[in-house]
Amino acid sequence: MDTKDSAGSGFVGNVFDPNCPSRVVFARIGDKWASLVIQILADGPLRFSELRARVGVVTPKVLTQALRALERDGLLQRTVFAQVPPRVDYELTPLGATLLEPLAALRLWAEHNVSALLNARDAYDEARDAQILAP
Amino acid sequence: MDTKDSAGSGFVGNVFDPNCPSRVVFARIGDKWASLVIQILADGPLRFSELRARVGVVTPKVLTQALRALERDGLLQRTVFAQVPPRVDYELTPLGATLLEPLAALRLWAEHNVSALLNARDAYDEARDAQILAP
Repeated sequence: MDTKDSAGSGFVGNVFDPNCPSRVVFARIGDKWASLVIQILADGPLRFSELRARVGVVTPKVLTQALRALERDGLLQRTVFAQVPPRVDYELTPLGATLLEPLAALRLWAEHNVSALLNARDAYDEARDAQILAP
Repeated sequence: MDTKDSAGSGFVGNVFDPNCPSRVVFARIGDKWASLVIQILADGPLRFSELRARVGVVTPKVLTQALRALERDGLLQRTVFAQVPPRVDYELTPLGATLLEPLAALRLWAEHNVSALLNARDAYDEARDAQILAP
């Protein structure tokens, strides 16, 4: 990866520094709807209804909030077309598109390790229940 | 990446499927304390107090909850040493260690794009404020 930051200011953060703003970024992209939306928009712009159908179980209000936060952070572009009925498209900005590669690595990890993680969860809960129920 | 899942069950998830449990995994590793703790433990086991000092601004209660969730998911091992005063160490499990590579890619993105993201945020807020204040 290029060692120069994308804004050209020369500032590079450090997430291990408790005062570094890059932790805010980490929290932002850690949001589950945000990362899913970015990956769904990888293939091109979508309307709100198409996007919602691909995301699945999410209320319009929650999805709207996630989209607005992504737009505010410069990761997503919202375009309103003056037609009847009005059409609103969402697409990744060039900055948002740079997130696709690291997010894909995390997605592959999630998909390939979901069984191991759920098994560990069950084992943990069973051990805890056995402890509670022990005479 | 290996196409076989780590639990050996042959099950591979798909985060784009609204019913797939891998979305739960994504939400879990999306937690900001969780990903930070995993990266801090990259170099070896730490005690609670050492870990808390490295994490920075976090209450003991919130950090304890994050650690317990990571332990439950099989990503972190908690070891209690019977000594006075009792000593508790936290370290990554082999499963937890496999998360280091994808998390590092996301961290690099955060550190190198924090300026661009914060600039976008400021511009968005200024445009919104100007709209509200317009006569």
